[in-house]
Amino acid sequence: MPFTPPVAEQRFVLTHVVGLPDLAATDRFAAASKDVVDAVLEGVGQFATGEWAPLARIGDTVGAKWTPEGVRMPEGYARAYRDYVDNGWGTIGAPEAWGGQGLPFALQTAVLDTLGGANMGFALCPTLTVGAIEALLHHGSPEQQAAYLPHLSTGAWTGTMNLTEPQAGSDVGALRATATPRGDGTWSVRGTKIYISFGDHDMADNIVHLVLARTPDAPAGTRGISLFLVPKYRLDPEGRPGDFNDVTVVSIEHKMGLHASPTCVLSFGDTGDCVGELIGLEHGGMRAMFTMMNNARLNVGLQGVQVAEGATQAAVAYALDRVQSARAGGTSRDPVRIIEHPDVRRMLLRMKAQTQAARALVYYAAGQVDRANLGDAEAKDRLELVTPLAKAHGTDIGNEVASLGIQVHGGMGYVEETGAAQFFRDARITPIYEGTNGIQAADLVGRKLGLGGGSAFATLIADMRAEAKAPELVTLVDACEAVGGHLARAGQDDRLAGSYPFLTMLSVAACGWLMERQGRAATGDDDFAAMKRTSVRFYLEQIVPEALGLRAAAMASAAVLYAVPAEAFAA
Amino acid sequence: MPFTPPVAEQRFVLTHVVGLPDLAATDRFAAASKDVVDAVLEGVGQFATGEWAPLARIGDTVGAKWTPEGVRMPEGYARAYRDYVDNGWGTIGAPEAWGGQGLPFALQTAVLDTLGGANMGFALCPTLTVGAIEALLHHGSPEQQAAYLPHLSTGAWTGTMNLTEPQAGSDVGALRATATPRGDGTWSVRGTKIYISFGDHDMADNIVHLVLARTPDAPAGTRGISLFLVPKYRLDPEGRPGDFNDVTVVSIEHKMGLHASPTCVLSFGDTGDCVGELIGLEHGGMRAMFTMMNNARLNVGLQGVQVAEGATQAAVAYALDRVQSARAGGTSRDPVRIIEHPDVRRMLLRMKAQTQAARALVYYAAGQVDRANLGDAEAKDRLELVTPLAKAHGTDIGNEVASLGIQVHGGMGYVEETGAAQFFRDARITPIYEGTNGIQAADLVGRKLGLGGGSAFATLIADMRAEAKAPELVTLVDACEAVGGHLARAGQDDRLAGSYPFLTMLSVAACGWLMERQGRAATGDDDFAAMKRTSVRFYLEQIVPEALGLRAAAMASAAVLYAVPAEAFAA
Repeated sequence: MPFTPPVAEQRFVLTHVVGLPDLAATDRFAAASKDVVDAVLEGVGQFATGEWAPLARIGDTVGAKWTPEGVRMPEGYARAYRDYVDNGWGTIGAPEAWGGQGLPFALQTAVLDTLGGANMGFALCPTLTVGAIEALLHHGSPEQQAAYLPHLSTGAWTGTMNLTEPQAGSDVGALRATATPRGDGTWSVRGTKIYISFGDHDMADNIVHLVLARTPDAPAGTRGISLFLVPKYRLDPEGRPGDFNDVTVVSIEHKMGLHASPTCVLSFGDTGDCVGELIGLEHGGMRAMFTMMNNARLNVGLQGVQVAEGATQAAVAYALDRVQSARAGGTSRDPVRIIEHPDVRRMLLRMKAQTQAARALVYYAAGQVDRANLGDAEAKDRLELVTPLAKAHGTDIGNEVASLGIQVHGGMGYVEETGAAQFFRDARITPIYEGTNGIQAADLVGRKLGLGGGSAFATLIADMRAEAKAPELVTLVDACEAVGGHLARAGQDDRLAGSYPFLTMLSVAACGWLMERQGRAATGDDDFAAMKRTSVRFYLEQIVPEALGLRAAAMASAAVLYAVPAEAFAA
Repeated sequence: MPFTPPVAEQRFVLTHVVGLPDLAATDRFAAASKDVVDAVLEGVGQFATGEWAPLARIGDTVGAKWTPEGVRMPEGYARAYRDYVDNGWGTIGAPEAWGGQGLPFALQTAVLDTLGGANMGFALCPTLTVGAIEALLHHGSPEQQAAYLPHLSTGAWTGTMNLTEPQAGSDVGALRATATPRGDGTWSVRGTKIYISFGDHDMADNIVHLVLARTPDAPAGTRGISLFLVPKYRLDPEGRPGDFNDVTVVSIEHKMGLHASPTCVLSFGDTGDCVGELIGLEHGGMRAMFTMMNNARLNVGLQGVQVAEGATQAAVAYALDRVQSARAGGTSRDPVRIIEHPDVRRMLLRMKAQTQAARALVYYAAGQVDRANLGDAEAKDRLELVTPLAKAHGTDIGNEVASLGIQVHGGMGYVEETGAAQFFRDARITPIYEGTNGIQAADLVGRKLGLGGGSAFATLIADMRAEAKAPELVTLVDACEAVGGHLARAGQDDRLAGSYPFLTMLSVAACGWLMERQGRAATGDDDFAAMKRTSVRFYLEQIVPEALGLRAAAMASAAVLYAVPAEAFAA
């Protein structure tokens, strides 16, 4: 599948949505000059196009394979990963103190956007490493940071997140993995973890597992969970990967998509010889995990952008090439390229508009990470509020756009060789992992609406209202304020019953706000600016009104859900 | 995947939506007594559950295979198909004159609903045979009917539809297959057809291909197309399958789903020895094909119902079994079955409501087939109007519900072994084949809105308005009337630009109308009646208002679609 890095779009969004020039005006991000940003976007674009995109199909058709010696990636992946490390693409946002470039998180987001647009399954590997870096940076000891961060920053070693167990999915507090003191300050870790993305592979010298487990006599639930650092290979006295650390890959899942990403069942301490180090405080695991998870949630929202970008490019290319039927009502009876037919064009414009909207939302959130890191307390609140929107709505859009991509291809879209189906299959995990989108909606209404006594929500509404001009958008912002106020006062059941429709309404409002702003900034007469203005107009005139249709569902009482006993659903 | 035939629901819909008792009061359908209907629904339910459902997974994992000797179905299919024939399930709606039972099309629809709910890919085979029967019944000569209908009626021989060629997809008129007279009244057929479902298999003694081709000097486009009957094996003097008729399976497609259904590339007349018979008039192929196609469109809409039913049953079973997390805000900290969590329950109720809505719409259309066959001219118009709704919205619902089914399963839904992913992959072809849903929308606004000078549309609006009580539904019906009036007067581009959103609005209005009617009829205090009232309430209060959000898109000018040149979409 040919891939064109969306450099112009990324530069535009970084400028007008993220406000990267403002960030670059600070000491901390002074390195993020226009030249550097351009060089990064263009460089990673060339790299991803040349080395990662060509591997997307073999990643799907062959996929990662389990062997008794560990997981083997498809041919070409190990080399393409090494080139990623050698070219320094892992270091963009990593801390300068540990060999990184310390560039803005928003720019790192754009880099991952490109890598994942070229090959979504592959890009999940560095995405997880970024999460491990964040956790160690915020919660690791100086010794842990010194031992691991230099290798994680380059990507020479990769990271994983180990939360889920068979009985503990969305309910992390139900986990049973244990860690017992070995008497030397280290811990003996035991347990089985499932759904561990890139839990094993053959592309890096070491794999750094961050593992949630219970210490002896820990309280029940999430309050008794601690986070452990468990390398695949223990470090020798020189800090190099040494002895095997008793982390075994039991199997990998047979998934519908994302085959390049091995989803592992990992067994820790099968022979009682798995050594871990505590990260942060005992029983402080959830807090440390949330550092990783919030970051990971934005990056999963970004996967929605990646797959939407790839699917849109493929559909546009097909629709510009495939000739079929004359224009209805036209004077000529000659068949035309299908992009000329109104309903095909509508699908393509929707794909463009939705992809741009998701990108704006996720990049906006990424920009708040940088502002929060600069000490802006309001940005921290904004980030917390929009994280569930970016994760859930970004991935919902990825799925919708991938489905439209198949539709534009017609029968060819259902045949695997075309590649449209891969986007559709790959995308479907994103509303599930890193907290299902339902969990995101619960987080929105349960925690984020009330953040700062409701001030975070009020600020977002005020931000949107200060700029919104289109009447549809103004109406939607008003509706969001009203529904948000209603849900904040509602009982728990009603609040959760309306959570998902409300999340969609608020996400569309936020996207509409950021799209409208881009439309104002797109004043050029080139194709890019014209396309931007057109997709903004489509978004405001057609997608924003749709979201208003969700108001009734968002305000609905939970009573209808419980009007019949659970068993009646099987009647 | 265990499957429970939805007998109570089918009986209820046949009674209150189709009005089967009224049909049974006519001479023609006198055989469709309550006892017979019950026996059919329960009998096919037992058969499908016992013999077809257990083959659904092997159909997906092993799938149909191409071999040089022809397509081989997975183990168990040939026998299960023979049992289907021997038990007479193929004969339900087939004409009595040719060995069928002559029962209402609506009852045959319920039979296919059950068979496809158990195994959607498998059920496509008899679905296509039904289409072939219809074409021969309406357009075949008495000799052709006598030679083929007895075998098609039982299903001992199966049928196919051969329209598509690589350069002729949605544009059937672009096809190039040829038929030249052999001088003895038969025709020599040559050409390559693609996407031929069950174009070959090893379950029946013969396969009856209905093939669109051009005769010498035929006019260009659809006006020059004729329909030919091309058996896989020519009939010997006793009417039994004899010599091979030079129809070769070149390959089968590697599809994302529906693996039990072999999608064939067929080559006719490779050695110049493929003999066909003309069906109906020369150059009258499109008319004959539409007989098959309209029938097939309803049956594809029915596939949406089938997959929605299967996905819903699987998700409900999982949610009743899987225990995870305590109820938020509850007093107990014990984890509960996930069906108790509000957002999971919302997804399940949406799945129930949407499945019921799609079934009501498709069965309603099927009932109009029977009324039209009884000579009711208004029913014929109603059928024409709702056929694109049933096909497009039925399949859209199938896809939405299958996606929700994965979401309810969480991570398990993405793992193939669960079966939720199969529904999702199988469903995705249905908005594409038998005329893409975009083609259905174009048919709605281009031909059906103006049918009888607009009287068909006016009648449907009047039908809905005469019964609709819920204020949301009344508002939607009004909106549909206004948008339909606007589109009927609009220019071609604007009409097509708004066609898909309008199709969805009108479909939801029709579903809401038929759902509300069912809600009034569901007066019992059993689980079935309570569930029906609940899903009706959810549909009217939450899904109907969503459709109102599409009004802006349905009324939008096409100008935004053409505001930039096609190439700008690649910018």
